[in-house]
Amino acid sequence: MSETSRYEAPMRRALDLAARGPLVGGNPQVGCVLLDADGRIVAEGWHRGAGTPHAEVDALSKVTDAAGLTAVVTLEPCNHTGRTGPCSEALIAAGIGKVVFAVPDPGAVSGHGAQRLAEAGIPVVHGVLHDEAEALLRPWLEAMRRGRPWVVVKWASTLDGRAAAADGSSQWITGAAARQKVHEQRAQSDAILVGTGTVLADDPSLTARGDAGELLPAQPLPVVVGERAIPADAALHAHPRGVLQTGTRDLARVMADLHARGIRRVYVEGGPTLASAVIAAGYADEFAIYLAPALLGGPKLAIGELGIPSMDAILRLHVDTVEQLGDDLYLHAVPKEG
Amino acid sequence: MSETSRYEAPMRRALDLAARGPLVGGNPQVGCVLLDADGRIVAEGWHRGAGTPHAEVDALSKVTDAAGLTAVVTLEPCNHTGRTGPCSEALIAAGIGKVVFAVPDPGAVSGHGAQRLAEAGIPVVHGVLHDEAEALLRPWLEAMRRGRPWVVVKWASTLDGRAAAADGSSQWITGAAARQKVHEQRAQSDAILVGTGTVLADDPSLTARGDAGELLPAQPLPVVVGERAIPADAALHAHPRGVLQTGTRDLARVMADLHARGIRRVYVEGGPTLASAVIAAGYADEFAIYLAPALLGGPKLAIGELGIPSMDAILRLHVDTVEQLGDDLYLHAVPKEG
Ligand SMILES: NC(=O)c1ccc[n+]([C@@H]2O[C@H](COP(=O)([O-])OP(=O)(O)OC[C@H]3O[C@@H](n4cnc5c(N)ncnc54)[C@H](OP(=O)(O)O)[C@@H]3O)[C@@H](O)[C@H]2O)c1
Ligand SMILES: NC(=O)c1ccc[n+]([C@@H]2O[C@H](COP(=O)([O-])OP(=O)(O)OC[C@H]3O[C@@H](n4cnc5c(N)ncnc54)[C@H](OP(=O)(O)O)[C@@H]3O)[C@@H](O)[C@H]2O)c1
Repeated sequence: MSETSRYEAPMRRALDLAARGPLVGGNPQVGCVLLDADGRIVAEGWHRGAGTPHAEVDALSKVTDAAGLTAVVTLEPCNHTGRTGPCSEALIAAGIGKVVFAVPDPGAVSGHGAQRLAEAGIPVVHGVLHDEAEALLRPWLEAMRRGRPWVVVKWASTLDGRAAAADGSSQWITGAAARQKVHEQRAQSDAILVGTGTVLADDPSLTARGDAGELLPAQPLPVVVGERAIPADAALHAHPRGVLQTGTRDLARVMADLHARGIRRVYVEGGPTLASAVIAAGYADEFAIYLAPALLGGPKLAIGELGIPSMDAILRLHVDTVEQLGDDLYLHAVPKEG
Repeated sequence: MSETSRYEAPMRRALDLAARGPLVGGNPQVGCVLLDADGRIVAEGWHRGAGTPHAEVDALSKVTDAAGLTAVVTLEPCNHTGRTGPCSEALIAAGIGKVVFAVPDPGAVSGHGAQRLAEAGIPVVHGVLHDEAEALLRPWLEAMRRGRPWVVVKWASTLDGRAAAADGSSQWITGAAARQKVHEQRAQSDAILVGTGTVLADDPSLTARGDAGELLPAQPLPVVVGERAIPADAALHAHPRGVLQTGTRDLARVMADLHARGIRRVYVEGGPTLASAVIAAGYADEFAIYLAPALLGGPKLAIGELGIPSMDAILRLHVDTVEQLGDDLYLHAVPKEG
């Protein structure tokens, strides 16, 4: 067996553990297993979210003596003192014999743990199940690489692409099942972005709610993008997370600011002007499109101007999910490569 | 067994025979079986299209002596001398003992065959498998009831409802499989309707073609709707069926004229102005919607103004087919009842 293939089974287990962690909260999902000299798993750990022990430290806490063990971890151990100490130092202090990881940590601050371990004389193997780990962590990894959040753009429209009737009324274009899925997608986001136009028109609460209208445990931060201030009596002021008003339309500034606040996943809920601007700027990493079996015609488009002059510049998508939700269709898509 | 239930099996067979006939050409699909005194099928017939024998006459031609037999036929026998004689008279002349049919003929001219048969002393049973026959013949029956063709409205758009890029370029929004299905749907129509705008912009040939570009056997009549004349060198002038220019935007007049020409199924291929006008006027009986996994934004909408002011008036559809065609989605829908 090659050096890397013997670690694939424990790495697969570490990935399963990683997936138990939360998608939201700013930190990556990380799993770790500790192996004895025979390659048997003697301890497991995973990260349960910001402020809790990292996966390596969680696993180390399960053994009384980690000396000589091999740590198999999905992400390069961090080298950064945040709310918890650097994992590289914890592994060195515990006398770990070898470290195996799947993907390097792209964080400018948190990265370089592998280098620190090597300097301490600990053999490091990397790239085991790289693609699987990359797939699991893609939004977080890309956020760290680009210094901006991963962006999901959502809209609901009729089959002719309208988001509202001519008079602006839009309740309800889609049915209950579609609207419930939107709440679930909110809950998997660190922030929800809306334009000032939507707040002024609809006065939304932007909470993530369950079937019975109850607040879900995870509540993303509502962010209102635009120059105008929202009214003092806007429902958003009652949001459990408060509300962030950007005061600007400059999406690059907004993205950088959200990144600096530790926001890694944003869910853009519209309206049409904001959604179109986000897509046109190339920020849309995923599309969550809800299509109601209906026609409206008229001027209220779900997507407005994208700055595409001709067919050469058409934005092709890869649709990876088509799902019936009640009477509605749900499509999940990503920009097509190349 | 009740009087009607004993004829269900032969009627089912007659419906199968009916379905062998052509959808196009103006005449309904009709099937007929002749039963002996023991209820056994002794002859079968179906209508192969305008100018050929009707189903009853086709079945009668298979026996030397029809005296006393029961004719089971999907549609009320006609009472009209067209290119062929009235079936009611043929049945009477053949000495048929009883006539069973599924749906009455709504034709003002062709109908009343049942009355003629009864007057001749032949017992008539009707309503056997009524709903199945109605489903098979619905477009033709509705065309006859309303005095206007059955209308299928087709469009191809991106997921944001655009039919072309800002500069008007639209080749190709959808892929080969979707475009091939459009050709098949053309071939199942008596006429294709386009607005003058589409002819002036695209100079389409509007022929129904196969995979290899060859002309299909059935070619619907191309109809150009609008006030303007099309150019003398328009590709449509080379169409095997010629081209019909309405010279008017008045859809009620166009529909009545097409009906008078024996056109029962029309396929509205756009552009957006014509398709929207047809939908707004309430003529759309079916929708064939091709959605390409792409976004374009901008002003070139697949559907324009429908005259729907608010959500109360939203046009809800029932989508009965969602099909992946290459990368594209095909949706078939009908207006939702009530
Ligand atoms: N069907 C759906 O999925 C859905 C979802 C949400 C909303 N809606 C509907 O959308 C309607 C509101 O439409 P809308 O387009 O006015 O809403 P919007 O996109 O929420 O707000 C537009 C405003 O956002 C600000 N803005 C922020 N970033 C911008 C940028 N990069 N470029 C341009 N403007 C930017 C501008 O206001 P400032 O002047 O303040 O900068 C702009 O006027 C409502 O009727 C609502 O019901 C539908
Ligand atoms: N993606 C698709 O599925 C698809 C299909 C077809 C076309 N297209 C595109 O559509 C574009 C053309 O758009 P268009 O909207 O100008 O085309 P159109 O609907 O074919 O033509 C519009 C013209 O039709 C006439 N017309 C006929 N009946 C009418 C009525 N009841 N109400 C109003 N006008 C009526 C009017 O011209 P008169 O002045 O002559 O009366 C009107 O200007 C082209 O670029 C073409 O490529 C796309």
